[in-house]
Amino acid sequence: MRPKRGGFKLTDKILVEDSRCEGPELADHEKVELAPGFSGAGIHCGIKRKRKDLGLIYSEDECSAAGIYTQNKICSASVHVTRDHLTNGRGRALIIASGVANTGTGEQGMKDAKEMARLTSKETGVPENDVLVASTGVIGVRLPMEKLRAGIPRLCRQKAPAGAYDFAHAVRTTDTFIKHAALRFNIGGKVITLAGIAKGSGMVHPNMATILAFITTDLAINSQMLHKALRDSAADTYNMISIDGETSTNDMALIMANGRAGNRRITSPDEDYDTLCYSLGLLNKKLSKLIVRDGEGATKLLEVTVEGAATDEDARIAARAVAKSTLVKTAMFGEDANWGRILCVLGYSGAQVVEDTLDIYVKSSKGRIQVVESGIDAMVDYRSACNLLTDEEVLIDINMNIGEGRATAYGCDLSYDYVRINGDLRSNRR
Amino acid sequence: MRPKRGGFKLTDKILVEDSRCEGPELADHEKVELAPGFSGAGIHCGIKRKRKDLGLIYSEDECSAAGIYTQNKICSASVHVTRDHLTNGRGRALIIASGVANTGTGEQGMKDAKEMARLTSKETGVPENDVLVASTGVIGVRLPMEKLRAGIPRLCRQKAPAGAYDFAHAVRTTDTFIKHAALRFNIGGKVITLAGIAKGSGMVHPNMATILAFITTDLAINSQMLHKALRDSAADTYNMISIDGETSTNDMALIMANGRAGNRRITSPDEDYDTLCYSLGLLNKKLSKLIVRDGEGATKLLEVTVEGAATDEDARIAARAVAKSTLVKTAMFGEDANWGRILCVLGYSGAQVVEDTLDIYVKSSKGRIQVVESGIDAMVDYRSACNLLTDEEVLIDINMNIGEGRATAYGCDLSYDYVRINGDLRSNRR
Repeated sequence: MRPKRGGFKLTDKILVEDSRCEGPELADHEKVELAPGFSGAGIHCGIKRKRKDLGLIYSEDECSAAGIYTQNKICSASVHVTRDHLTNGRGRALIIASGVANTGTGEQGMKDAKEMARLTSKETGVPENDVLVASTGVIGVRLPMEKLRAGIPRLCRQKAPAGAYDFAHAVRTTDTFIKHAALRFNIGGKVITLAGIAKGSGMVHPNMATILAFITTDLAINSQMLHKALRDSAADTYNMISIDGETSTNDMALIMANGRAGNRRITSPDEDYDTLCYSLGLLNKKLSKLIVRDGEGATKLLEVTVEGAATDEDARIAARAVAKSTLVKTAMFGEDANWGRILCVLGYSGAQVVEDTLDIYVKSSKGRIQVVESGIDAMVDYRSACNLLTDEEVLIDINMNIGEGRATAYGCDLSYDYVRINGDLRSNRR
Repeated sequence: MRPKRGGFKLTDKILVEDSRCEGPELADHEKVELAPGFSGAGIHCGIKRKRKDLGLIYSEDECSAAGIYTQNKICSASVHVTRDHLTNGRGRALIIASGVANTGTGEQGMKDAKEMARLTSKETGVPENDVLVASTGVIGVRLPMEKLRAGIPRLCRQKAPAGAYDFAHAVRTTDTFIKHAALRFNIGGKVITLAGIAKGSGMVHPNMATILAFITTDLAINSQMLHKALRDSAADTYNMISIDGETSTNDMALIMANGRAGNRRITSPDEDYDTLCYSLGLLNKKLSKLIVRDGEGATKLLEVTVEGAATDEDARIAARAVAKSTLVKTAMFGEDANWGRILCVLGYSGAQVVEDTLDIYVKSSKGRIQVVESGIDAMVDYRSACNLLTDEEVLIDINMNIGEGRATAYGCDLSYDYVRINGDLRSNRR
């Protein structure tokens, strides 16, 4: 399944350039970008067997920075260190190791994550406290620090504005393609760039479908407003995607803003801030959809929209429950318009549901068919409804008809390959 | 995977006879039982293509009766009717149709469920209000009432004490074996029988892993205490099993007590009541384990015990989360002692967790190995830990070391066959 070209809805007022967001066959150096003033790098240092496993983002200027993190109570040492370093609202470099999660590694893991920051600080001149740290990979294994001690200086020497492509490769585990998007928008006549690189599911020695997203921008903004914008946009994007219903120990989304665009610095929720939120929402939605498209074993992208819910929060709960239900996901894999399963999930989701006002539609590029009307069989031709599901992108639209709440969740189907990737490790044990 | 013979721990004081609980090869007429004074029947009436699809339990005497039901807000018409009929605490007959859930069928579904009760009342002489109704199967399809109108009279004519075997077959959908257990215990010198028949996961045209359990006993007890005993025992049994994390629209567990044993009627939480609770707990645990053993595509039974949690409720939350995690389930299928996934699930379960006090063990008939000590790798030979998982029954023991809470959850692995059964319907669409 390959992502398609482009796709942002452009609002002339604020978006002056479409995103560049491509599949594997299109991802070349020019297309992956960081905002002006940022450099990137990615190398192989030996955590993985062959592929790039160490990445850097570096800003020439001081940046406002913000992060959001996994809600898992057990989390990686890198999450602890980054959260700590971001309490001052600044971050000028990001170092990431992929292949090892540095989770379940106790005191030693904390020492190792701090050493990653210290080594990066030494090589780049960025204060240790302004170095953010990320990691993704196998839980319970220590970082091979001797390899990092040799790798980080080499990595830092290679940093360059064109290094975004190498960085995007370095954050991959078994992602089958790199995930990036960028867009430009206009604030007070200044053109602002938002550029994001993300990592989704899949590990060679699989553990977690970790979500990582790193966003750079040349916007001028304080860290409080940057944090609020990131957090709010995540509610409709990163928090609405599910591959297998598991919450990783290593998830994080980070944003760094260096202010180079020269706009009037955003310090309150004004119109400029709204423009940022809208744009960041588009960028994060794009990255989120790329992540679920590349879900382990996924053959289909599943987009579930709930309208007419009692509240937006109820709509979110219901949409997420449908997108992550194993029975819905296997039905989508089987291209079976088994709406009874959707009905059932809505019932146990926890959202307010009135059975006899429920309408359900299935949709794809091939058309749209109502399968449930007022809680019961809409008496359409079942085979036609199944036929819609043979598409690579399948939509389930639910109208609860009880309120104004609305939300969309994204997921993927559950295939034999998910079980193979996550279960059949007999030949692949450490 | 075949269940093994017997297996209740006997406490001399109260249990005078072990359960009869067998796999498919052992299930013959004599081994499936109802309590004295009850009759059963099961026939094929045409809902399914060939197999039995209509079942009856009938009591010669009036019974105290109680039920617990799915928490799904969308539930079968049969759940609505049975809940309504049980408000008076009485139930003397149970009629079940398998193959069609009678869910998502609106007003007509309610009429059909009520007609099932009325037809059964007419044939058995049991007041309509004392007839309980159950169903399981495809959601969104109407019951073929003309077949039931012909079938129910025929079914009722066949009722007999030896009809338990036929009833047990009639409640199956794609269960690969019938699930039953019985035991006897002693109250004030009277021998009491508890006999249960259950239905687990799997549908020919699959929808839900519906759990149904029907228990008969000759105990004398009022319906309030019977309900309390059933509800309390479910907390540690039916509510602690997961096949795919989905809550069916049709789940119910019903118990009928006819008082024939002649014990002093239980009307308060005295010592006799405690004896009942202990025995009912054993019976329901047995039936619960049979249900997960026969989970769709399951190759292994997974038993997760959490000790040392802050509270029992926390232990339940944590144990259930591990037992239903798709990443843990696929690891078990792959016989991979990937304890990082267990750590991760504990972190997001919602239970209170202190990372550096966590101990985790894997266990099977082949031994027991500690894989996590104080939150980090216990540094055992990984291959040996994986080797334990090649057994058909795998146990994960977790000690949180922060309190006294304790609970056990039961699940199964996630195999290719689960995806096949639930996904690959191309050849099987209606």
